[in-house]
Amino acid sequence: MGNSFGKIFKISTFGESHGKGLGVVLEGCPAGLAIDEDFIRNEMQRRKPGQSKITTQRKEEDEFQILSGVFEGKSTGTPIGMVIMNTDQKSKDYGHISDKFRPSHADFTYFEKYGIRDYRGGGRSSARETAARVAAGAIAKMFLKHYGISVDAYVSQVGEFKLNKPYQELDLSKTEDNILRCPDAEMAEQMIELIDSVRKSRDTIGGVVSCVAKGVPAGIGEPVFDRLHAELGKAMLSINAVKGFEYGSGFEGIKMRGSEHNDSFYTDEAGKVRTKTNHSGGIQGGISNGEDIYFNVAFKPVATIMIDQDSVNEAGESVTVSGKGRHDPCVVPRAVPIVEAMAALVLADYLLISRTNKL
Amino acid sequence: MGNSFGKIFKISTFGESHGKGLGVVLEGCPAGLAIDEDFIRNEMQRRKPGQSKITTQRKEEDEFQILSGVFEGKSTGTPIGMVIMNTDQKSKDYGHISDKFRPSHADFTYFEKYGIRDYRGGGRSSARETAARVAAGAIAKMFLKHYGISVDAYVSQVGEFKLNKPYQELDLSKTEDNILRCPDAEMAEQMIELIDSVRKSRDTIGGVVSCVAKGVPAGIGEPVFDRLHAELGKAMLSINAVKGFEYGSGFEGIKMRGSEHNDSFYTDEAGKVRTKTNHSGGIQGGISNGEDIYFNVAFKPVATIMIDQDSVNEAGESVTVSGKGRHDPCVVPRAVPIVEAMAALVLADYLLISRTNKL
Amino acid sequence: MGNSFGKIFKISTFGESHGKGLGVVLEGCPAGLAIDEDFIRNEMQRRKPGQSKITTQRKEEDEFQILSGVFEGKSTGTPIGMVIMNTDQKSKDYGHISDKFRPSHADFTYFEKYGIRDYRGGGRSSARETAARVAAGAIAKMFLKHYGISVDAYVSQVGEFKLNKPYQELDLSKTEDNILRCPDAEMAEQMIELIDSVRKSRDTIGGVVSCVAKGVPAGIGEPVFDRLHAELGKAMLSINAVKGFEYGSGFEGIKMRGSEHNDSFYTDEAGKVRTKTNHSGGIQGGISNGEDIYFNVAFKPVATIMIDQDSVNEAGESVTVSGKGRHDPCVVPRAVPIVEAMAALVLADYLLISRTNKL
Amino acid sequence: MGNSFGKIFKISTFGESHGKGLGVVLEGCPAGLAIDEDFIRNEMQRRKPGQSKITTQRKEEDEFQILSGVFEGKSTGTPIGMVIMNTDQKSKDYGHISDKFRPSHADFTYFEKYGIRDYRGGGRSSARETAARVAAGAIAKMFLKHYGISVDAYVSQVGEFKLNKPYQELDLSKTEDNILRCPDAEMAEQMIELIDSVRKSRDTIGGVVSCVAKGVPAGIGEPVFDRLHAELGKAMLSINAVKGFEYGSGFEGIKMRGSEHNDSFYTDEAGKVRTKTNHSGGIQGGISNGEDIYFNVAFKPVATIMIDQDSVNEAGESVTVSGKGRHDPCVVPRAVPIVEAMAALVLADYLLISRTNKL
Repeated sequence: MGNSFGKIFKISTFGESHGKGLGVVLEGCPAGLAIDEDFIRNEMQRRKPGQSKITTQRKEEDEFQILSGVFEGKSTGTPIGMVIMNTDQKSKDYGHISDKFRPSHADFTYFEKYGIRDYRGGGRSSARETAARVAAGAIAKMFLKHYGISVDAYVSQVGEFKLNKPYQELDLSKTEDNILRCPDAEMAEQMIELIDSVRKSRDTIGGVVSCVAKGVPAGIGEPVFDRLHAELGKAMLSINAVKGFEYGSGFEGIKMRGSEHNDSFYTDEAGKVRTKTNHSGGIQGGISNGEDIYFNVAFKPVATIMIDQDSVNEAGESVTVSGKGRHDPCVVPRAVPIVEAMAALVLADYLLISRTNKL
Repeated sequence: MGNSFGKIFKISTFGESHGKGLGVVLEGCPAGLAIDEDFIRNEMQRRKPGQSKITTQRKEEDEFQILSGVFEGKSTGTPIGMVIMNTDQKSKDYGHISDKFRPSHADFTYFEKYGIRDYRGGGRSSARETAARVAAGAIAKMFLKHYGISVDAYVSQVGEFKLNKPYQELDLSKTEDNILRCPDAEMAEQMIELIDSVRKSRDTIGGVVSCVAKGVPAGIGEPVFDRLHAELGKAMLSINAVKGFEYGSGFEGIKMRGSEHNDSFYTDEAGKVRTKTNHSGGIQGGISNGEDIYFNVAFKPVATIMIDQDSVNEAGESVTVSGKGRHDPCVVPRAVPIVEAMAALVLADYLLISRTNKL
Repeated sequence: MGNSFGKIFKISTFGESHGKGLGVVLEGCPAGLAIDEDFIRNEMQRRKPGQSKITTQRKEEDEFQILSGVFEGKSTGTPIGMVIMNTDQKSKDYGHISDKFRPSHADFTYFEKYGIRDYRGGGRSSARETAARVAAGAIAKMFLKHYGISVDAYVSQVGEFKLNKPYQELDLSKTEDNILRCPDAEMAEQMIELIDSVRKSRDTIGGVVSCVAKGVPAGIGEPVFDRLHAELGKAMLSINAVKGFEYGSGFEGIKMRGSEHNDSFYTDEAGKVRTKTNHSGGIQGGISNGEDIYFNVAFKPVATIMIDQDSVNEAGESVTVSGKGRHDPCVVPRAVPIVEAMAALVLADYLLISRTNKL
Repeated sequence: MGNSFGKIFKISTFGESHGKGLGVVLEGCPAGLAIDEDFIRNEMQRRKPGQSKITTQRKEEDEFQILSGVFEGKSTGTPIGMVIMNTDQKSKDYGHISDKFRPSHADFTYFEKYGIRDYRGGGRSSARETAARVAAGAIAKMFLKHYGISVDAYVSQVGEFKLNKPYQELDLSKTEDNILRCPDAEMAEQMIELIDSVRKSRDTIGGVVSCVAKGVPAGIGEPVFDRLHAELGKAMLSINAVKGFEYGSGFEGIKMRGSEHNDSFYTDEAGKVRTKTNHSGGIQGGISNGEDIYFNVAFKPVATIMIDQDSVNEAGESVTVSGKGRHDPCVVPRAVPIVEAMAALVLADYLLISRTNKL
């Protein structure tokens, strides 16, 4: 269990960091959608390692192949199978940790759960699996675009540096202008410097990715358990290194009074019911209200550091784990497209489900 | 969709605030569990309205009946159906809002979604539905107790007042000693005063419920999408008024360096692999590691206030919504058992699933 | 697991033969459907015991209550909870078999599976559970009727007596004209006589229920695993006492040559693509083609007979099981509404799913 | 929807007849199972085209690759991804039918459902998809073997020729001795002759595959909807060309009296509760009782014939469909491993689920 996500627009992923390949089966993409392979490729470029000095220098080409479900450039309604072959399976690199549990990685827990583990690069627990999510998410984005819905994420915090502007005051078209993916150039510079200094000290640091979805019509969401924000939250918490999720006013909102926090309704000039404020983050009672949906996702500092650490091995003996290889000092720049992909998958799925709500 | 939760130990709830009754079907409870109806009753008392001066004064008796699945005091493995009949269906109380959209309630979004809505007390969107969850959650707690697992929640923040102690420094056995359900008596008093003053100003305020699960064995959780914390997060975000979820170091953890944040492993005197710190919140790679699981849940200020608010009606015309009835000034004291119930349901479900992991 | 059926238009049933009550939660019924309680009542009358000399003389009133999901006569899109309280729980009647395994009942298998069993009237394995299905199925029928789809079942075989006419040559409006629910009056008489003689010899006999769905549009069905006929087959095989399912040409069709069996396409006067024959039973490749859907369901002779039988008890000792109580000599007359209910549930569900197939 | 099967031991397949490749993701295979790739290869050989004069002469090599989920020869508990690349994609062969609906194929229904179709070799509706099922089913068989469970299918009917012996009187080890896969050599010869003569007349014919599972412990099955035989029935009905399913006494059993049909219990010398007869087919109340499970699956005559047929094209105009290419005159010899694969997948899944039934 646990390797599928979604109800109708649904993905199943497979693959380990250093296996032969990984992939995804995307079911339930409605027939007739034009599939732009270049767009998928571009999304995967945004996630891939080695893209800048503040990401890992590891090289993975992430060439994907669509094996099924697309005919003459359009989705056919049948499952879209995609694979990404691993060309560089240097499993020898991992001999030094093959029986050691790296602190705050999933080595120990996978071993406890399955009694066996693929120690090469974290095996299934590696964030490499998110490449498959990004490929499928790119298709979800195309589907949403067809209905005028956009999903845009950006870095809003790195360590202590926090972008204290709401998304409305940012120009999200500038997100890709810097290697950090923060639309505020000045703040980006400071954050990049921080990451760089952390990297030089062979350490790592955490951050926040914020995300905004525009154009989602009112009426999307499936209470009581599958509220739109609950599914978004699960989607985000399923990404490697995520420790928290909040939407709308989030954790800060608890300090407000109800009279401040409530979003008053009014009818705009076009006759559409709108809210004056949007502390609700575009979701009320678990259902979209037509306003922008926005949320924050907290990422912990990357567990792999270049500093020696105390640990134990499979026999329970004390060992030292030494950092080796090429790793990210901070995960957020590469997490931006992953957050977008998962958000797009949730919205595509829920948009389809909402077709069944009324007679 | 959306009214079931869980995979094996699974609930389906039904019922509206002012319908004839509500209930829950609990599937997958293993056979042979002794069912203590008094315990269920007690859990429901903790959630029910009218229990103190800082909760709504509304009276709901919440008498439940077990209709099936229990024979001679034990679960039989077949679905446990429970109903709670609504004795007090004062739908006339709601005539004044029958075509108005209350700000930050789900009136508008349900109307958009379904084109029809049961306006009485919020209908299905009412937190009254959580009574069914608490009933089922009580059975989940009994199941967990059988395996030595406990789940304890408490209030850790109300508005600006935040309990700045980690749970390890609190005596959780004192949670029920005050009407707020905060184990720190002094802090509780301040928080209660704050709620009381907010109530007097006819307003509402938000808060945080924290939760700790002890005794969960290592190996529980279903990556990559159904990570234990992702499912816990979804469960919490599915509760009315929740705006955020974080586990372990959460949003604060992003400021740490990897070298501080990582939880080093060691072998304890009993030969068990443990971690020296627990920033991971007992979960690594989405799988429990045997340490305590802990997390925080943010609740927004209650949307129903006793102050007049601007809004629109179904026709889109400007109207005034006046607060009426008996409502909670702050939801957290009654949310404590709901958080516990949902956490227990997730853990019971995942504990069962983990039986299928190995040959 | 196993107590829910359907994906969107989905039921979860609960309840045992002699528990306090049973019921069903119907999720996913689209909002705005007029709910006719008299129609539900009527469907339940068709299933209930004691309706004629060839059914059990046991009295069960089967009064149902809708607890939720319906407001001002219409479905609201939220779960429709229905309960049927058991007024007559004569558990003392079952003392004589409380530790015996009745041959070809589920006493032994439930005991092996759960290690505990509710021996009263078969507990959860009793066909009494189908009352809940019929209640939900009645709503599915209303939903289908809204779209011009009908589902009609009838008895086509009892023991050796087989109605050798295809459904096209029968007047299905006459099905309810006799107590057997066979639209051929003459054949019905012979079958009734056979059942009556079997009943007098304290024995039981099997039969076949045939079913026809008209008006299903082309394009309904979810290959490759959830083919329309596969889901219909599962639905039927989930009914108590069913041993076989075939659709279209069924088991007889294997003797035909492809050139005879293939259904040629033509365009009718209205410009609609039709088939000249319908050996496909209205389903090709698991998807409806717009022709009538028809299938047969085989029911074994009822396991409860009034003749002494050899068996063993829980301790494995040889015992005699004596028939007692009021039971059906042949299940098919009462199975007709159950077959219709399950077929309607599948079609309603798949009709909704098909809304998500195209852009 | 519809491309996944199973709950825990679960497969998702993808791929079309003439796309780049097809494959399967197998989730939930417990960790630690030795994976024998030769066994998988052998199973796929049994299904592949071109194996004898009575199957299609089409060549498909069906080379599969395991991309994930297996490490050092053992399953790791993570998804096992397998792909089969299509080396021979002669889509030009299908130009002549690209806008025609072949009678009793799924061309028309896919077009109605999706508004678009991959006409090459039937696209997703092609039985080529079953290659993926056989690969996953081979792993299910290995898992079952570990617990002493075997699944063996054979041909029991071709057209009018029916093997009138129960499986107990057959030597199932001889099934692979002839190209038909019928364990009765004499009958096999007659059936082969029939198929050969049908093939020469450019026509096709139907048949029955029977299947026996031995060693399934008592207690497997999930009533009320997911009865073991209901899931087996769905699995079989999901195979291309299947028109009917019956288990135990099946359609014949309806002629019996209850007193004949009931399977009396006794305790054998080893102290195990057994039944004297097995009309129940090893399943009572939807749960295995420890006896052999057996069932029959009816396959229609293959739709592709070499004779000209009347049909219409996408524009609704009358056209002639001429048979071309290399097709099976009778599907049953190649269906034997598919039936086994699907049965093994159901049993593996249900065996795992049953681990959650008791405390």
